[in-house]
Amino acid sequence: MNESATLAQSDDDQRPLSDLDSLIGYNLKRAYMIAQADFRKALDEDQLGPRDFSALLLVAQFPEITQSRLARMLGIERSGLVAIVDALENRGLLKRTHVEGDRRVQALVATPKGQTAYVKALGLVRDHEEKLFSVLTDQERDTLVSLLHKIRALETD
Amino acid sequence: MNESATLAQSDDDQRPLSDLDSLIGYNLKRAYMIAQADFRKALDEDQLGPRDFSALLLVAQFPEITQSRLARMLGIERSGLVAIVDALENRGLLKRTHVEGDRRVQALVATPKGQTAYVKALGLVRDHEEKLFSVLTDQERDTLVSLLHKIRALETD
Repeated sequence: MNESATLAQSDDDQRPLSDLDSLIGYNLKRAYMIAQADFRKALDEDQLGPRDFSALLLVAQFPEITQSRLARMLGIERSGLVAIVDALENRGLLKRTHVEGDRRVQALVATPKGQTAYVKALGLVRDHEEKLFSVLTDQERDTLVSLLHKIRALETD
Repeated sequence: MNESATLAQSDDDQRPLSDLDSLIGYNLKRAYMIAQADFRKALDEDQLGPRDFSALLLVAQFPEITQSRLARMLGIERSGLVAIVDALENRGLLKRTHVEGDRRVQALVATPKGQTAYVKALGLVRDHEEKLFSVLTDQERDTLVSLLHKIRALETD
């Protein structure tokens, strides 16, 4: 294939195909960037960043989750989680508590304000995804999520 | 659903399902993070970061590409591209030239060293992807890339 020719032929198309477009990793990156930008628009009013959102959601869904477990579920370092938890606590969205029966283990619970914020934010994000991914049929979305779950099963703890 | 119970029941499994796991954007993010980490391992020896790799690949594939066009294809700001192009030029992998017939327009071409580096790096990345994504069948990979292309078609220039 004459690749110069490929570019010349597609002067009206900003996206001539390159080797990059066949790489799964690169396609994941670009699709993620689109989703990320849309996500930020969805939650602009709430000033809840992607990491805050994910952390709050898990704490709200799994009361008394430990910070170690939360970090593991988020796939981030525990040290990186501390700032997120501090910020959410300062905003009154969650509080540090202790695991029932073992006061040495610190755990996290969402406050009522945090629960409300979580439900609202999740609704906004779902609405945005519904619009953004309307290029895919319901079945295609299910397929995509299922394939991505297979990749995520490669995550190492 | 009693979500505390969900967590308790899955004590041996670090990945109980949460609302996050149903969000396409979040799944894209996590799958991308896995691919990104693997990519960095693939190219460790070459010290070619993901952005350098993508830029070099496109310059090698599309000789005399302009910086504006390259930035557009990479989905990044032109200002962000300058540092990448400078670094690649300093390493002797590409050079700035002029579009034939219009000396006012600056364009980029890969040097022979850059062509060699691109072919080698692409081979390493493909080998890594082959191993990493062996959890998916060939057909599943094709499906995944095709679905991601549909999402990428949402990109705005």
